[in-house]
Amino acid sequence: MYGLIGKMRATPGQREALLAILLEGTEAMPGCLSYVIAQDPAEADAIWITEVWTDAASHTASLSLPAVQQAIAKARPLIAGFDHHIETVPVGGQGLSLPM
Amino acid sequence: MYGLIGKMRATPGQREALLAILLEGTEAMPGCLSYVIAQDPAEADAIWITEVWTDAASHTASLSLPAVQQAIAKARPLIAGFDHHIETVPVGGQGLSLPM
Repeated sequence: MYGLIGKMRATPGQREALLAILLEGTEAMPGCLSYVIAQDPAEADAIWITEVWTDAASHTASLSLPAVQQAIAKARPLIAGFDHHIETVPVGGQGLSLPM
Repeated sequence: MYGLIGKMRATPGQREALLAILLEGTEAMPGCLSYVIAQDPAEADAIWITEVWTDAASHTASLSLPAVQQAIAKARPLIAGFDHHIETVPVGGQGLSLPM
């Protein structure tokens, strides 16, 4: 498995708008076992995204999906920056399943 | 929802043993929507754990479950320390469901 833990910052006041785009653009991605979008309660504009994929190739391929490309285009003006980008190797746990 | 992103370090050479304890001790936890245990490929002894719970109370209650208490007791001697402990407010995504 291939995992990512990332933190992004929205431009001031735009976190809700950015979250809505992320939630919409990340449905039905082949090879995606888990994709959790979260607010940082300690930082008004910060968003954490934690992802698990069957492999790195599935993650890379997802970036070419039309829905994801549209989400990236809509989200880009609302993103101020990225603070963390950590690659992991998930070994197991709960809530890891391929979408129907 | 209530989320946690944490990094722990195993004592030198004990990551695999610690992972096995964590995987075993974190099954069937009420209110747990997602629990992903991962190796850090860049750091030989590091483990990332990302969790999503229905609420903070479910997470707190899980720490009293017999299986979790046993896992904590077995794991403690193999843990060198914790580097990150981030609370989040998950808003949605994929792979969030209550266990059967």
